[in-house]
Amino acid sequence: MQSRSSKEQRSGNTLRLALLGLVFVVVLLAGGFSIGRASKKATTTKVSVGGGLDSIAAARNLSADDVENALATYVPSGKYDDYYMFASGGHSGQVFVIGIPSMRILKTIAVFTPEPWQGYGYGNDWSEAALKTGRTMPLTGNDITWADTHHPALSETNGEYDGRYLYINDKGNGRIGFVDLRDFRTKQTIQIPNHQSTHGGAFITPNSEYVHVSSNTPTVWPPAPNAYAPLDQYKDKYRGVSSWLSIDQKTGRMDLDKSFQIELPPYTQDLADAGKGPSLGWGFVNSYNSEMATGGKMEGKPTIESGASAGATDYLHIINWKKAEEVVKAGKYDTINGMKVISMKTAVAESVLFFAPEVRSPHGADVTPDGKFIVVSGKLDPHTTVYSFDKIQKAIAAKDFEGTDPFGVPVLKFSSVVEAQVELGAGPLHTQYDDKGFAYTSLFLESAVAKWKLGDWKLVEKVPVQYNIGHLAVAQGDSAKPDGKYLVALNKWSVDRFPSVGPLHPQNLQLVDLTGEKMRVRYDMPMGIGEPHYAQIIRRETLKGILNYELGTDPLTMTTSKNVVQQGKEKIEQRPGVTEVWMSALRSHFTPDVVRVKKGDKVIIHITNVETSRDTTHGFTISGFNIQSSLEPGEATSIEFTADKAGAFAFYCTEFCSALHMEMQGWLLVEP
Amino acid sequence: MQSRSSKEQRSGNTLRLALLGLVFVVVLLAGGFSIGRASKKATTTKVSVGGGLDSIAAARNLSADDVENALATYVPSGKYDDYYMFASGGHSGQVFVIGIPSMRILKTIAVFTPEPWQGYGYGNDWSEAALKTGRTMPLTGNDITWADTHHPALSETNGEYDGRYLYINDKGNGRIGFVDLRDFRTKQTIQIPNHQSTHGGAFITPNSEYVHVSSNTPTVWPPAPNAYAPLDQYKDKYRGVSSWLSIDQKTGRMDLDKSFQIELPPYTQDLADAGKGPSLGWGFVNSYNSEMATGGKMEGKPTIESGASAGATDYLHIINWKKAEEVVKAGKYDTINGMKVISMKTAVAESVLFFAPEVRSPHGADVTPDGKFIVVSGKLDPHTTVYSFDKIQKAIAAKDFEGTDPFGVPVLKFSSVVEAQVELGAGPLHTQYDDKGFAYTSLFLESAVAKWKLGDWKLVEKVPVQYNIGHLAVAQGDSAKPDGKYLVALNKWSVDRFPSVGPLHPQNLQLVDLTGEKMRVRYDMPMGIGEPHYAQIIRRETLKGILNYELGTDPLTMTTSKNVVQQGKEKIEQRPGVTEVWMSALRSHFTPDVVRVKKGDKVIIHITNVETSRDTTHGFTISGFNIQSSLEPGEATSIEFTADKAGAFAFYCTEFCSALHMEMQGWLLVEP
Repeated sequence: MQSRSSKEQRSGNTLRLALLGLVFVVVLLAGGFSIGRASKKATTTKVSVGGGLDSIAAARNLSADDVENALATYVPSGKYDDYYMFASGGHSGQVFVIGIPSMRILKTIAVFTPEPWQGYGYGNDWSEAALKTGRTMPLTGNDITWADTHHPALSETNGEYDGRYLYINDKGNGRIGFVDLRDFRTKQTIQIPNHQSTHGGAFITPNSEYVHVSSNTPTVWPPAPNAYAPLDQYKDKYRGVSSWLSIDQKTGRMDLDKSFQIELPPYTQDLADAGKGPSLGWGFVNSYNSEMATGGKMEGKPTIESGASAGATDYLHIINWKKAEEVVKAGKYDTINGMKVISMKTAVAESVLFFAPEVRSPHGADVTPDGKFIVVSGKLDPHTTVYSFDKIQKAIAAKDFEGTDPFGVPVLKFSSVVEAQVELGAGPLHTQYDDKGFAYTSLFLESAVAKWKLGDWKLVEKVPVQYNIGHLAVAQGDSAKPDGKYLVALNKWSVDRFPSVGPLHPQNLQLVDLTGEKMRVRYDMPMGIGEPHYAQIIRRETLKGILNYELGTDPLTMTTSKNVVQQGKEKIEQRPGVTEVWMSALRSHFTPDVVRVKKGDKVIIHITNVETSRDTTHGFTISGFNIQSSLEPGEATSIEFTADKAGAFAFYCTEFCSALHMEMQGWLLVEP
Repeated sequence: MQSRSSKEQRSGNTLRLALLGLVFVVVLLAGGFSIGRASKKATTTKVSVGGGLDSIAAARNLSADDVENALATYVPSGKYDDYYMFASGGHSGQVFVIGIPSMRILKTIAVFTPEPWQGYGYGNDWSEAALKTGRTMPLTGNDITWADTHHPALSETNGEYDGRYLYINDKGNGRIGFVDLRDFRTKQTIQIPNHQSTHGGAFITPNSEYVHVSSNTPTVWPPAPNAYAPLDQYKDKYRGVSSWLSIDQKTGRMDLDKSFQIELPPYTQDLADAGKGPSLGWGFVNSYNSEMATGGKMEGKPTIESGASAGATDYLHIINWKKAEEVVKAGKYDTINGMKVISMKTAVAESVLFFAPEVRSPHGADVTPDGKFIVVSGKLDPHTTVYSFDKIQKAIAAKDFEGTDPFGVPVLKFSSVVEAQVELGAGPLHTQYDDKGFAYTSLFLESAVAKWKLGDWKLVEKVPVQYNIGHLAVAQGDSAKPDGKYLVALNKWSVDRFPSVGPLHPQNLQLVDLTGEKMRVRYDMPMGIGEPHYAQIIRRETLKGILNYELGTDPLTMTTSKNVVQQGKEKIEQRPGVTEVWMSALRSHFTPDVVRVKKGDKVIIHITNVETSRDTTHGFTISGFNIQSSLEPGEATSIEFTADKAGAFAFYCTEFCSALHMEMQGWLLVEP
């Protein structure tokens, strides 16, 4: 080497450094050497890196960055991702579970939209019971069989994700769903009274006392079927609402009897977040359209997009939910459609509700991990605005108001409550945080993520993303103790990033590595089955998902079904108009495998999957009956239908379970 | 270097070789050097590999194989996968589009199950029209809102995939769907007459004359609502059917008037494939349960799994479809439920149908690319059986029959038609082919892929997969000219491969690299939203998906909608009981944005997305109305509903389209 120039030597050293990494790994695997950074000595070890790297990288035209990105994201067979990301499905109505850093979809959890692979919403079983409670929209009387899911919220203990429960709101129809993270199944959906939409939240209070949602578009007030008011009575007759839905700590279910709402002006309430630490007990909801524009383009009025952007300011809603609890306890509420509702007047009188001015058309409301600040961005303003909770409290105590809004809600003086305004770039929307005091804000118009420093209130760096980022999610980013490390940019447009799959393009979820000096985009993940709006990222170890059910478990209640079928105890009972069957499923047959019923019978089939090994799922369907159950090992389910027409109908296992899976079949005979 | 021992030097050289690959790539990118294998000289080039590789691989504990796998599968941002894989969704009822080698899901195509992200099956629009034709199962009268999709079939020209159309069967309910690959949308679903199930196929004849499916479980014959026969009349009163569905070459739609069926015995018809080359004009369907077992465990009879495995042989169905066409032209058919059906008797008399013995409980029927052989495996036999088409023809000509089956179908002598039996391992199922004369057979019980040589009829190599592989797919593997290169193992079980997502585990689709000396598993892809049974892999360049629609296109017909709305020509028409709206969608408003109707009105809204840029999708929903449309750029759609209750309901764009997307909202006022 002595003969090489110093320039060449530098080059050689750089290359060697890269090489050493590979060597190091191999050494580690081959010889069980102690872990530590590789030294030059390692090059003398007798190992091979396996060959083929050179030709692979060349043949695939990978750049040095590509190679690094590949290594930073690849998860080998049988090894696990470090994090789960729970992303809303947008108008798919579901939730996606995505592994990080591999960005592989581990599961789609059906929440509001029937999904037959999971047997969710088919065959009148327990899953339909979960769907049914949220299905009918009282204002229209229509059954809603999809949703516009927006903001997943993981349950928390002391402000940290505890991995027990997940909640997700339906923007389109004013609903919320609850997913049990023991078995990753939806156990409850609710049509929230007095909502026709939701947007602010779902967020969870730091000890999962409540899951909060607020309305997006307001509703004719008080809401009732056939309640009507024309748009020129918008200010007087339409209202928004902030809902605090009480969580049962044992089951995760929401209990409307212990929940309450706060009446709000007919602005468009937007994103929301819970206070924590010093701001524990408070919630924050941004809003736009304080102009109360209602459109009317063909009648010469401004569209909502221009009408709602006409004024200079909107209002950050500051809600003291601990105080609201006391107000409810004191009985100072109205009951509207079964919900306890604190009127705006009472909310003001009892110091439950305050406003702070926001820069026009704001978006995002994100509390810092330490609970000291609330960050709100402006879609039409290059700045993000940082509100100080301490200053808010002082202003409230000092009654430092600039007046009230048209509904009498006191408005805190902007200059008294704002800590800083940070210029970030075009179209700032949402902000997340890491463990090192940095904030990350999505820039929709600029298609970039801005990194900035809390306290310094200064922009540090931007990284372009492809394209038009909406929300972003940092590992553990909504908790009191973010991890940093990874950020996912939930880009709304992919344009040219993926090969054509027709005019409807996938979204592009991009993994950004936060561990280096600079942010780096590592991976593009096409999302071709929904439009995730928001996501939360949780450490894999925090989740304690079960792998099997105890024999005979009813997934809805997680207790033993009264219709559990033990092997050998299968039976068929017939009574006038009803055939009831207790059936077992075991590789590779159902018992009974012939079921005879009379035409017109109501048929009830209780099936228990009596398997006990992991991943021994069976499915159950009957040709022509719109039934599809996914029976996990140990699960007991009951399906019901009417056999309207005589005939011979095959039933079979839909989940490939064994070499003789195709033979796991039987006959439903409907006798004339 | 002279001072190092020869041992050290060898080691250093090996390592250097690996390194050179990286260097080579960088050189290539930086300097535009001519492509060729890297030499030692390259190490003197002044480039950096970007650093960080060493620490990344070490920190992530990647082995040398892992690193190679990462490089072999990573697709950088903005670069495209080489292949599309179209995989059935199993009981999800859909089709998945997956990029290879990255194994990323590019899209889910909704086929039989309503899917709101795509607006498929919501709001009485064109997509509901596509669903409606296949929705009602005539034998039960039930609407079926899901499917058990099994075998996707890409259209072919001269035996090669032409990228125009895709067909997919519903095993559970005897249906088939057609996906237009111009826009990746389903345009037709059909309830195939005389089927209650499908399994054999879908396969396509080499010039897409027909798409074939055969029944799985038989049906009481002739099929009709309330047609009934007890199981002890199974042999006489139940029948299977082989359906040849004519494809309209211009539209891709199936035309039942030009289609025909062949009556079959009540065995369980299974996998199927089309002849090509010398076997053009023929089709092959394997079957099991020639024992005609019907279960009855609780009545002391054998389950189907044991009853159907009791006999020694089953029958490969050999069908001369060119001859069948002539028989139909000659009028020798019955019309049953509107379909032309060649009876078994006629099929035998006209030499349309022959049988060849199969080893008990067979699975798979896969014609070699040259059309000379048909490969059938046996779930319970370690051999795969190779039938020679030439020998089959000679045996037919020589009437070299061992007799007939119980239905009078001539059975060719096994020894006269079999070319070879190849011992592969436990549980062989399906076979695919590459471009080098190798065959690849899935071994379910052994959890492996067996590679063997055609002509030599010898096992070459096996690679373990995780776990229990069902189908497999090779790039272009069903065409007359396979590419080889990649194989995907569609494993039914994942067990421990992925972190827990509850008792319902994802499947595991594994990418196997066929380009090296040895097969190598490169990537594990969790499939947590369906159970793909079969897949076809097509070169990316073959597909010519459109990116935008011409302004005002009705996706169902791909012609201009008569209700296209030009910008500025929007209008509302009211007549007694009806409000009809012609609406445009353009960032960031709908015109009109206020729609007033009378309570009880039928409301028809024609919406045209007048955007012309790629990826400018808008969505449309109305709170409480179960409507969700995805309006691609240029698309015209029409939705219909009844406004049953008075009230003020927000409508809005569900697809995040612009900075003021949230403001893309309007009001439906239902006046009392």
